[in-house]
Amino acid sequence: MAKHRVLLIGATGETGGDILSGLVEDGSFDISLLIRPSSTNTPKAKALEAHGFPFVVSDLTEPVDQLVTKIKGIDTIISAIRSQEALSEIILVEAAAKAGTKRFLPCDFGPVCPPGGIMAVRDTKEIVHNAILVAKLPYTFVDIGFWHQFSFPPVPSGKLDYAILFPGTNVIYGDGNAEGILTDKRDLGRFVARIIKDERTINKKVVAIADALTQNQIWEIVERLSGEKMNRTYVSADEVVSQLARAKEAAVASGNEKVNLEVIAGSYNWSRYVRADNSPENAKYLGYLDSRELYPDFRPIGFEEFMREALQGKAKKLYADGKVEKLYNDGKR
Amino acid sequence: MAKHRVLLIGATGETGGDILSGLVEDGSFDISLLIRPSSTNTPKAKALEAHGFPFVVSDLTEPVDQLVTKIKGIDTIISAIRSQEALSEIILVEAAAKAGTKRFLPCDFGPVCPPGGIMAVRDTKEIVHNAILVAKLPYTFVDIGFWHQFSFPPVPSGKLDYAILFPGTNVIYGDGNAEGILTDKRDLGRFVARIIKDERTINKKVVAIADALTQNQIWEIVERLSGEKMNRTYVSADEVVSQLARAKEAAVASGNEKVNLEVIAGSYNWSRYVRADNSPENAKYLGYLDSRELYPDFRPIGFEEFMREALQGKAKKLYADGKVEKLYNDGKR
Repeated sequence: MAKHRVLLIGATGETGGDILSGLVEDGSFDISLLIRPSSTNTPKAKALEAHGFPFVVSDLTEPVDQLVTKIKGIDTIISAIRSQEALSEIILVEAAAKAGTKRFLPCDFGPVCPPGGIMAVRDTKEIVHNAILVAKLPYTFVDIGFWHQFSFPPVPSGKLDYAILFPGTNVIYGDGNAEGILTDKRDLGRFVARIIKDERTINKKVVAIADALTQNQIWEIVERLSGEKMNRTYVSADEVVSQLARAKEAAVASGNEKVNLEVIAGSYNWSRYVRADNSPENAKYLGYLDSRELYPDFRPIGFEEFMREALQGKAKKLYADGKVEKLYNDGKR
Repeated sequence: MAKHRVLLIGATGETGGDILSGLVEDGSFDISLLIRPSSTNTPKAKALEAHGFPFVVSDLTEPVDQLVTKIKGIDTIISAIRSQEALSEIILVEAAAKAGTKRFLPCDFGPVCPPGGIMAVRDTKEIVHNAILVAKLPYTFVDIGFWHQFSFPPVPSGKLDYAILFPGTNVIYGDGNAEGILTDKRDLGRFVARIIKDERTINKKVVAIADALTQNQIWEIVERLSGEKMNRTYVSADEVVSQLARAKEAAVASGNEKVNLEVIAGSYNWSRYVRADNSPENAKYLGYLDSRELYPDFRPIGFEEFMREALQGKAKKLYADGKVEKLYNDGKR
């Protein structure tokens, strides 16, 4: 039997790389990678080529019919495109509908949150979702909560600092009791491999869940595993709301509204810790299928397991090329 | 046991009136009506008051907390607000969330169609849907396809002309084979009564279906029941698309973009007959529960039954106050 043919967009990124690993590990897929013409000669792309992955080269601005011929015969398209480029998925949606692609996973892979003005990045994703529905393209929308890798505080000894990308994980927002969905980023592809082979998930939203923890629970876990007495600095819910309002005002004033990391961080904090949008309960309300019910036999990497590794110095710093940090620091200036 | 308390918005309109009838017929509801201050003394409102329905008087522009006190204790809110006023539902959504309303039905009650630029009225409804999701308010979104009452052609003898509201039902669009969901408007409230007592429909989309018929099938039915030889004038799919494009251009040119009935009619034709958005298959794709599966014992009024009545002169002309026709004729000028 012919293998399930997958086209992956964004394999050189954090999310795409994890998805690729999981699909390869699964072994049941013929994987092609969509690469932009400007990226075919980058070291990352060269490394992927050396592994034997065929490239579909497109900048996603070509005529739809031309793109259709390139993706003909693909069963499943998975997009892990950079969030700033999410809207360029739309041409791929149109091409996929014409090419008869059997399932399309747009670049979701984020926290659970409804559209409607809470997080700009989520609203952009909704435009892509709607384009999929208009095209009547079979889909699965997959969210994964927050990565363990983004969701732990520093410890007083400093031994976790090496693995912390953003500041702001050192405080507890609101009362610290908002439950949030967590997954280990290394499990992304394992979840995706299961989801795209599963007819139950066609035309559905799925949320991958390893753990659902509050910040207070996370602090207790880190305290217990590290043996260190943790600081507990609280930022009230009201302060989260006004921080966000101030960040939005500043963004408007500075003209730097488009990718403003203060606004993004503020929106995330509001959604995650004050509104508790990213809870299993809210995911259920929003109609998501729960990976724990779909795949009871799959044991994802738990938060504690990740923390043990991180405390042993084995966690990997994300976005190691420093681009995201640069963006963040530029945004603060 | 206390009765299920319902607040209905728009009871003096076509959709709201049908919903009210069905709820009354069911008998298990305590029904209040939301009436605008400017409408409390209209003959229609007076008639409803005489029937003993308590009024909640609000223009939906008051402070949310004030509205909360008015709707406290209501179990289910059903909005059949005029489509031009759909966005004023949002304050009601916020109030309902604060008041602990157990279920909210916004003013959907239309054809199945995804958001994303196909029909402006649908996209406006999506803004309300998103406000509901942001408020984490329990909901049911109910669509009903098109009314039988809007979905039949005139016969050569002219004996159906009395019941036809809009021109344009005399032609077959595309190849006439797009399947479309139909319900009798008199069944609206019967469907709604069942849906709001049904825990399976909480936080779900439901489509009420009496029949799913193509225009060719409708022509055959009318021919058979009337005994008249029907005209068959076809407007090609391409022509539907260009009619819509022309209507949009004309609307922009005239500055009359907001409620432009040519654009609305063109969008409906495109969605209904060319895209076949309003088919049971598409409803399933979009995640709707199907009333035929939910309520197999309920026998809605079928299209044939309606047509027999209409041919006997027993159909009622809709929007008898002439407002919609006036709007339509004004729009054409």
